Amino acid sequence: MSATAYMINGFDPGQTAGLSADELRLISERSEVLGPSYKLFYRHPAHFVRAEGVWMYDAAGNAYLDVYNNVPCVGHCHPRVVEAISRQSAILNTHTRYLDESIIRYSKDLLSTFPSHLGNVMYTCTGSEAVDLALRISRYFTGGQGFIVTENAYHGLTTAVSELSPSMGKNVPLGQSVYTVPAPDRYRTAPGEDVSARFAADVQAAIDAMQRKGIKLAGMIADMVLSSDGILTEPKGMFAAAVKAVQAAGGLFIADEVQPGFARTGDSMWGFQRHGIAPDLVVMGKPMGNGMPIAGVVMRPDLIAEFGTKIRYFNTFGANTVCIAAAQTVLDVIRDEQLLGNCANVGAYMRAGLDRLAADNPRVGEVRSAGLFLGMDFVKDRRTKEPDGAYAIDVVNRLREKQVLISASGVSGNVLKIRPPLPFSRANADEFLSRLEETLRELG
Amino acid sequence: MSATAYMINGFDPGQTAGLSADELRLISERSEVLGPSYKLFYRHPAHFVRAEGVWMYDAAGNAYLDVYNNVPCVGHCHPRVVEAISRQSAILNTHTRYLDESIIRYSKDLLSTFPSHLGNVMYTCTGSEAVDLALRISRYFTGGQGFIVTENAYHGLTTAVSELSPSMGKNVPLGQSVYTVPAPDRYRTAPGEDVSARFAADVQAAIDAMQRKGIKLAGMIADMVLSSDGILTEPKGMFAAAVKAVQAAGGLFIADEVQPGFARTGDSMWGFQRHGIAPDLVVMGKPMGNGMPIAGVVMRPDLIAEFGTKIRYFNTFGANTVCIAAAQTVLDVIRDEQLLGNCANVGAYMRAGLDRLAADNPRVGEVRSAGLFLGMDFVKDRRTKEPDGAYAIDVVNRLREKQVLISASGVSGNVLKIRPPLPFSRANADEFLSRLEETLRELG
Repeated sequence: MSATAYMINGFDPGQTAGLSADELRLISERSEVLGPSYKLFYRHPAHFVRAEGVWMYDAAGNAYLDVYNNVPCVGHCHPRVVEAISRQSAILNTHTRYLDESIIRYSKDLLSTFPSHLGNVMYTCTGSEAVDLALRISRYFTGGQGFIVTENAYHGLTTAVSELSPSMGKNVPLGQSVYTVPAPDRYRTAPGEDVSARFAADVQAAIDAMQRKGIKLAGMIADMVLSSDGILTEPKGMFAAAVKAVQAAGGLFIADEVQPGFARTGDSMWGFQRHGIAPDLVVMGKPMGNGMPIAGVVMRPDLIAEFGTKIRYFNTFGANTVCIAAAQTVLDVIRDEQLLGNCANVGAYMRAGLDRLAADNPRVGEVRSAGLFLGMDFVKDRRTKEPDGAYAIDVVNRLREKQVLISASGVSGNVLKIRPPLPFSRANADEFLSRLEETLRELG
Repeated sequence: MSATAYMINGFDPGQTAGLSADELRLISERSEVLGPSYKLFYRHPAHFVRAEGVWMYDAAGNAYLDVYNNVPCVGHCHPRVVEAISRQSAILNTHTRYLDESIIRYSKDLLSTFPSHLGNVMYTCTGSEAVDLALRISRYFTGGQGFIVTENAYHGLTTAVSELSPSMGKNVPLGQSVYTVPAPDRYRTAPGEDVSARFAADVQAAIDAMQRKGIKLAGMIADMVLSSDGILTEPKGMFAAAVKAVQAAGGLFIADEVQPGFARTGDSMWGFQRHGIAPDLVVMGKPMGNGMPIAGVVMRPDLIAEFGTKIRYFNTFGANTVCIAAAQTVLDVIRDEQLLGNCANVGAYMRAGLDRLAADNPRVGEVRSAGLFLGMDFVKDRRTKEPDGAYAIDVVNRLREKQVLISASGVSGNVLKIRPPLPFSRANADEFLSRLEETLRELG
């Protein structure tokens, strides 16, 4: 028997002191109908009844600053997205086996944000389905089964994709043809060692180990901000040599943009562009429809020339007319509200603020960021760089008391995961930084 | 090299005679961006711009009677569902890691439609994800890998689920631990043979064959109207002995209700109830949110007692507050508009009408039905019962010319698949029967 599944910032149902009668009832009824796989956030679970922009509100009307949710990327309940969903729901909600203008318009628009070698898109409802489809295509095209992932990767929840998600823990076995490599972590790399070269060498070693076992390489998948590995964003370009090694060995490189995609990194629409690499496939999801279930795979057309001819793929709800209307509006709003620029601008401002807080704080090992995806790496000792997950969780829960929503990530859960909706302003950043400063001071 | 993927009622891009310039442009642009996996329905693809109730409309305002789409189960653009989606989208669209009343209310309501031994529900976005999760749970609980499916089953599109979907054709290999059995087809069973006993014997043979290979049985999954196997609905009770064999061998039985569920069969909310069986898990999808991407697995709580403790499962969009609002309204409308009764009533009326058309028509081998899921089995010869898929597709395309939307199913594509939205009325049935009668007369 293995231990219970651990979840960073998960609520412990055994610790209910301080919860109201109503919260206890909700928790108990929820557990009764949904069973034990469903986890809640926080020592004191949150209960929201409405949300708007970067704010979520509880029943008493208290406003919580959302520094965590990336799904409502253009802001909770953005009026243009709400209008698009409402309008399209009242007109037509149907599937892709009838002709339709809107899916073509959206697909062209989406593809125009990619390098020209990535010319086709296929749609699913979730990031997990998108990764699963990218795996199917990669394995079909290469004839291989082997996949390389980073040591604490999370790519999704289907049978096949959970085998590529070591962050799920030892109760979810990795696939026998799945090999892990340490994520490129400049902070914890020996001084003087080139993190990109180290990473490429680890990837090459995995390729060699597979070959030794007679496993043919299909490819590698990596989150372009390495979110679950601890938000590892620097140096730019650190994936390039590893991607080259994979492609040289006949494998495909899949950029997982479920976390960084859609302008968040501030430099470019897609995280892989920061690293100057040319992925063969790109998977995207969470922010794509501002909460409507839509996700997708963008790829080289030659990868599906044969697959698509021989294998039909029909995702009933995938890219239905309502989800496409939401997704189109998200792209429109990103452009019209110049959210890419906002991510660069407010991201840099947040980064400077975090650097200031970190400067004289022995609890903070490093601050890392790419636009509005930022991480603060807590350590027990700046010299040993030993991760301090317990401290990070204290920070997360103290911030929740101060009505700031945030979480943590990394193998040890020691990295504050700062990932607000994209319209986050400098005023919001000031509010957040001020609450964080208080928290760090109080916790000592 | 294997042949091109065949799809029943698929558009052939090589046959474009008679299409308008605008249709040709849409088809070409669509293919350009989406690639070859995306198929269209009909020799002459359809293009709709709005829909309401059981009608879909093209740009010229022509009304098409929808006798095919089961996703908009309470009718296209049902005003109460539209209102629920619009209202909730404007208030809060968030995930299941915060407390929320609506998911509890809906889950209790949904579970109240099931026998009491099925006490837990988990949510996904698609039927494929629901089947994939049911597989994961079944394999974890039993420690087995082996699954039994019917010979032309379709259960979904993830890597794991496509291995259980022989209807995808020979280009999609079945899993090595997946065994197929002939579907119980009373019409083509030898006279005097008991179809239920025959089916149970086939299932037992598959169990024995697995054991001989050292494959431990995890379970069996079957669509409760065997839609892709040809809409095999009779006799009621025909699954009982097979289910008993699976459960006696330590396997779990998964009822796939993606097609029949949510009142369509007229007798009961769920297709398995017609057959008097007690499944261990039930998967549902398509009609659940009237087009919003929501699906789920209902199951025995003991199946996830350990799985849920050791393995966390978080589906970002699964059961988000907007999808739950849609799903709740679907359940409410099914009750308030007495759609279960309508399925029984109009289903029986349709059945009588189809029986009348079949009586003196040598093209029709058999009519089968369960409520508003009906099939008309076309044959080349009533004596040999040889399926006539070409004729069925002629009927489908001729009906499309007459502005009636329908398709076909079965191994040979010879079974007219009659599956309208649930508020289909007797007047709609008269309209359909009249168009079908004309079509059969014209085609001879």
